[in-house]
Amino acid sequence: MFLAEGVRLLEESVRLHFLPRTVFYAPSMLSKRAEKLIKRFENRAVETVKLSAKDLRSVSDTESPQGIVGLFAIPSTNLSKLYQPKHRRLVLCENMSDPGNLGTLARSSLAFGFDLILLCGDSVGPYSPKVVRASAGAVFGLRIAVVTLKEVYAFLARERVMIIAADLRGELVTKLPRKALQKRKILLAVGSEATGLSKSLLERSDIRVRIEHLRTVESLNAAVAGSIIMKELFEMACKEGYR
Amino acid sequence: MFLAEGVRLLEESVRLHFLPRTVFYAPSMLSKRAEKLIKRFENRAVETVKLSAKDLRSVSDTESPQGIVGLFAIPSTNLSKLYQPKHRRLVLCENMSDPGNLGTLARSSLAFGFDLILLCGDSVGPYSPKVVRASAGAVFGLRIAVVTLKEVYAFLARERVMIIAADLRGELVTKLPRKALQKRKILLAVGSEATGLSKSLLERSDIRVRIEHLRTVESLNAAVAGSIIMKELFEMACKEGYR
Repeated sequence: MFLAEGVRLLEESVRLHFLPRTVFYAPSMLSKRAEKLIKRFENRAVETVKLSAKDLRSVSDTESPQGIVGLFAIPSTNLSKLYQPKHRRLVLCENMSDPGNLGTLARSSLAFGFDLILLCGDSVGPYSPKVVRASAGAVFGLRIAVVTLKEVYAFLARERVMIIAADLRGELVTKLPRKALQKRKILLAVGSEATGLSKSLLERSDIRVRIEHLRTVESLNAAVAGSIIMKELFEMACKEGYR
Repeated sequence: MFLAEGVRLLEESVRLHFLPRTVFYAPSMLSKRAEKLIKRFENRAVETVKLSAKDLRSVSDTESPQGIVGLFAIPSTNLSKLYQPKHRRLVLCENMSDPGNLGTLARSSLAFGFDLILLCGDSVGPYSPKVVRASAGAVFGLRIAVVTLKEVYAFLARERVMIIAADLRGELVTKLPRKALQKRKILLAVGSEATGLSKSLLERSDIRVRIEHLRTVESLNAAVAGSIIMKELFEMACKEGYR
């Protein structure tokens, strides 16, 4: 199970049809908007439990809790259960230890039409509270599989997925071969802030891309770099009409 | 004064010529790379102070300190001292309370040739440890002014700067009027995650831009959105040859 709290985050769980098992709330702490949200959960037959303000604070993870906390079942993270043949754009995060980066990438994935996130190596858990918060609820609308590299390679070969690796020594992302990508399933691989992608993944990749920037910084933030490449791939897909 | 710690971060301070007043280190905790870095500080006449591992841990802010902490003087945050007529691209962050977002935007600013950050409203301090860390050292290479909106407006009018506002109801960033921007100084205004830019800033802006994405999420992360727009403006500048 995992916890998610606050009005905005829990509103996203309703909007994205990923409902909590139980919602805990402290009536004295609720805004009007939070009260409405409790009603929406009740209308959807979600169990709601009243707590004292003191008890709610003790389950809350934030400094200024909004009086509402949801308890969710962790969904399957099994690739073979999550993958569907209709999925066209996937993201792989390798050694993504920063929860802020993983959450932000999840949010951008949902925004730019990436259907499935694969998480491998020494990564933070996809449903840890900081990831859920940083995702602004995007994890409620995504599928996230936890995988080994071996599983990834078997999967990619079987499904004929093209690997696009974010790599500082790659080609400019603005020069991606649009035609070649048009009819392929793609997987965008993003590595850790500190070390980038592993040698193994870089060697297996079909294309390596980088983002043009001044040499005043060594690299962009991993979530920013991943998001920029996602956006380019998304725009390409929109233009080609296969969104 | 502010603290920054870790090998990578302090290496950036050397590379970007923003040296600490004092470097504290615990010899027993240092990697070879950290030892080299201490030498580089000593060669640049930076005061270095040996500490026991226990004492170093007590000044450190991280869970696994690398045995090296720098103490820096906070630079001026006075706009009239920081601004230079040669600055062409500026960023304004309004109510940027998340240190991760501010640090990430600072990193992207340096990467995409934005010379000066203006910080207004209820924002986190630009040299707080989390901002410095999230910036990956970019704050060492940037100028950051803390300003009121009144100061901003007076400055923008005086310097004839065009305001480009990041706004969910704006036009697509890919449709920016390149010609109109070519000869102008620009300021990109980015608001908070929760509420976006204030009405006042939106009304004063010359152009409002948004990033195309699916309606599955309400918005992108503020640092991602800001970085994507910066990248577009940077590419435009490169193409027009006025980088």
